[in-house]
Amino acid sequence: MSTINTFAEMTGLASKSGVKTLVVAYANNDETFQAIVEAQRLFKIRCILTGDREIIEHGLSHHNGDSSGCEIIHCENPPAALARSIEYIRDGKGDILMKGSVDTGLMMREVLKDTSGLKTGRLLSDIFLLEYPRYRENKLVMITDGGMTLTPDLLNKVELIRNAVEVAHALGNQTPKVAILSATEFITPKLQSTLDAAVLSKMNERGQITGCIVDGPLALDNALSEQAAKEKGLRSPVAGHAQILIAANIEAANSLAKSTAYFADLRMAHVIIGARVPILIPSRADKSDTKVFSIALGIIMSEWYRNADGE
Amino acid sequence: MSTINTFAEMTGLASKSGVKTLVVAYANNDETFQAIVEAQRLFKIRCILTGDREIIEHGLSHHNGDSSGCEIIHCENPPAALARSIEYIRDGKGDILMKGSVDTGLMMREVLKDTSGLKTGRLLSDIFLLEYPRYRENKLVMITDGGMTLTPDLLNKVELIRNAVEVAHALGNQTPKVAILSATEFITPKLQSTLDAAVLSKMNERGQITGCIVDGPLALDNALSEQAAKEKGLRSPVAGHAQILIAANIEAANSLAKSTAYFADLRMAHVIIGARVPILIPSRADKSDTKVFSIALGIIMSEWYRNADGE
Repeated sequence: MSTINTFAEMTGLASKSGVKTLVVAYANNDETFQAIVEAQRLFKIRCILTGDREIIEHGLSHHNGDSSGCEIIHCENPPAALARSIEYIRDGKGDILMKGSVDTGLMMREVLKDTSGLKTGRLLSDIFLLEYPRYRENKLVMITDGGMTLTPDLLNKVELIRNAVEVAHALGNQTPKVAILSATEFITPKLQSTLDAAVLSKMNERGQITGCIVDGPLALDNALSEQAAKEKGLRSPVAGHAQILIAANIEAANSLAKSTAYFADLRMAHVIIGARVPILIPSRADKSDTKVFSIALGIIMSEWYRNADGE
Repeated sequence: MSTINTFAEMTGLASKSGVKTLVVAYANNDETFQAIVEAQRLFKIRCILTGDREIIEHGLSHHNGDSSGCEIIHCENPPAALARSIEYIRDGKGDILMKGSVDTGLMMREVLKDTSGLKTGRLLSDIFLLEYPRYRENKLVMITDGGMTLTPDLLNKVELIRNAVEVAHALGNQTPKVAILSATEFITPKLQSTLDAAVLSKMNERGQITGCIVDGPLALDNALSEQAAKEKGLRSPVAGHAQILIAANIEAANSLAKSTAYFADLRMAHVIIGARVPILIPSRADKSDTKVFSIALGIIMSEWYRNADGE
């Protein structure tokens, strides 16, 4: 497949995927119904909607949704809806799990339980994907991990890279450029993130991290701007063209990702990778296009896993 | 004085300041000469320029600078120029120290030496100031510290707040709203930055941190957007109106600050606070308006310290 360079291309790819089943945990608010109906319009999806049957039926009809493509599972409350949703995924009846009116923390704790049947033994990580207009060709840039691993150590960071690289591969980018971010591009022994970055780069050189080109430490300006890297005299195969930004820690990733929305008004999608299925945790403050792009990304990841399993 | 709400107002305030002497360590490149000449045009400044006399004279004349307002101190190389510049500041002959073609790391190491005469016993910190168009009234937002303290502990963070609050006061904002950032707005015992944030908030309540309103932990969306805070059900006197963002760590501050330039194209200034004089470390990749705004901020801080000393 050719590389997906923009959100428009990503939406196009998702629309060509086979039918996917989206399981929604406690579909109970307008934003969720809107997202479902928009996704029905753009993609080939079936929905399993858990929650209050009456509210769901009313919500779908209010937004002119296609109720024939939806199975409604009546559940009394959010925890019950979440449990049923996880059951559907565990039983192989769903391809993507999406949060409705359920607390994100509660949902992820349930997913992470050994009994959930959703774990794969891999680290789960939040992949934040944005469209960066300044890049000339491939405009898709990932930031990770702003939501899952509180204090990632070196081996956790290897997993974070692996998860993000999978998303890049699913988007047709076979050799993504991975920048390991810090506050400086120089090794600074008292700043652990610069040491981790150096080690991760070498692990990539030695073939211990594959499917990508890793370089770090890099500060954000060097990762994104060829000019900034040049002025620093940096030689790096990643600088100025980074497609995956591995932030130094969860706070840096979270602030950086939110900054692209609140300071920069860029478009974005996000998905949690590493479980049996892609998990979507739209927030109520997300714009509606974010929800659609996130569902598109979920569909693409689900399709990619299916093909990878068959190999 | 009234509150300074924009960079235009900040430049206006700086232009009304008394004469300030800017000491430039190794003035040796076009960007530096441009910034000096632009500052001569806008502000009442004298310059002490250390470096190669011939290059400086040529640079000033090439950019139509006012050489009568400049004292040129011939120095053979950057370290010599840096040493002379620090000497001028130590002897009280300069009000603002600015980096020319000297390595930032080298410059700050020299400043931080006990013998420099520039230390005050306080923590030095990098204050990054940006203009945030979405805010309705006061559009100036600070991010700190992305450049000085590698792994700030709780008491370091108290100092970081103090330095940023001084800048806010100098800009006429008597009670700035300070957000202590993390990846979440909930106390998460395994995430130290959330604990620090809670403690700093309480220190503010108890009068151990004054001149501002502190709240945290906050994620960036809650700090900047009233709507996002509302959707989370947050009650906070800072959420949606934060004017000072204390990042969780140096990596988060650095990425966040650079993100406003590289992802968001916002205008900015930066200054190092905590030494005897404001220190400016323009980077070659900075836009020219960044340099002018930074000099304006340096002038305002210098004037504010002078008045504070006299009280």
